[in-house]
Amino acid sequence: MRVMGVDPGLTRCGISLVDGGLGRSVTALDVDVVRTPPDMPLAQRLLRISDAAEHWMDTHGPDVIAIERVFSQNNVRTAMGTAQAGGVIALAAARRGIEVCFHTPSEVKAAVTGSGSADKAQVTGMITRILGLQQAPKPADAADALALAICHCWRAPMIARMAEAERRAAEQQRQFKARLATARRDGAGRTANSGRKETR
Amino acid sequence: MRVMGVDPGLTRCGISLVDGGLGRSVTALDVDVVRTPPDMPLAQRLLRISDAAEHWMDTHGPDVIAIERVFSQNNVRTAMGTAQAGGVIALAAARRGIEVCFHTPSEVKAAVTGSGSADKAQVTGMITRILGLQQAPKPADAADALALAICHCWRAPMIARMAEAERRAAEQQRQFKARLATARRDGAGRTANSGRKETR
Repeated sequence: MRVMGVDPGLTRCGISLVDGGLGRSVTALDVDVVRTPPDMPLAQRLLRISDAAEHWMDTHGPDVIAIERVFSQNNVRTAMGTAQAGGVIALAAARRGIEVCFHTPSEVKAAVTGSGSADKAQVTGMITRILGLQQAPKPADAADALALAICHCWRAPMIARMAEAERRAAEQQRQFKARLATARRDGAGRTANSGRKETR
Repeated sequence: MRVMGVDPGLTRCGISLVDGGLGRSVTALDVDVVRTPPDMPLAQRLLRISDAAEHWMDTHGPDVIAIERVFSQNNVRTAMGTAQAGGVIALAAARRGIEVCFHTPSEVKAAVTGSGSADKAQVTGMITRILGLQQAPKPADAADALALAICHCWRAPMIARMAEAERRAAEQQRQFKARLATARRDGAGRTANSGRKETR
């Protein structure tokens, strides 16, 4: 499974490409950070980020795009820009029929380090070891993009199992409701019939 | 000036088209609300919104897209979705070389009602009067999209004047810095020369 990991951002947007093999084997294929100047109009910044992400998608043909899910950050303005950068990349994936999956920062940290509250240094250290890199990936956005992709490789089987379980549960509920409706209709029919008998 | 007003949102995204004439004359050409179901994957929702907005752009050829600038709302999740919906529309405009302008909710309210803290009913009432409509536009997202476009028509000359003033100020500052640097270099040259004379 080829996963494109995205650590979204307007000023720095980390993009990585990781191949997930059997079990927990993962191979980093590429990683880069797309930058846009803060004094550029927002629409132009989004266009530059989208163009870069689309170039990666068309060149490498990932099976899935794993994007960090943005929550409120201390700086609301930054959080909005981050959400928008992730949004335009999700849109580009949807246009190509590529699956998009969002992971929260704590899901990523937990998957990679075993702790949902690990700091940046711990995440970078684990990424360097997991991928067997000579040097720690820099800047932090590059490491985060790799962590996102690895997190998806490792969580994907579990997510698929949960989706399958939810699908089955929904199917069972549908069948149960259908049987209940049939039973009620039959019951109502009998009551109506018995009612009619009494009034005769 | 033909303005496409956008009240961004994932569940309901208001889009309007307004022609701004001389002075404060404005004519509503069209207004609609794009809806996407909350249980649809985010990337698909963004795709549907983007497709609708792009269809409007390609059909009506607006000169500028006026989008509501999103601030933190009570519900952070909603605010993120709103920011993303606005982001993909800004991207579509940038791809077509159409200018994008953001206005805050209070700028819109102030432009349309005269008060930055007007409520929804006041905004809808004023929009109905300004555009000379037989009925108040519904839902609120449609009225907001019209308010955005009218706000842009009325603020555009002022924004253009401010941009021109800023451009001139930046140019003056550049010239002043250049003169200062020349004066310093000449001064430093004289000091160096006088220093050389002294050591002779």
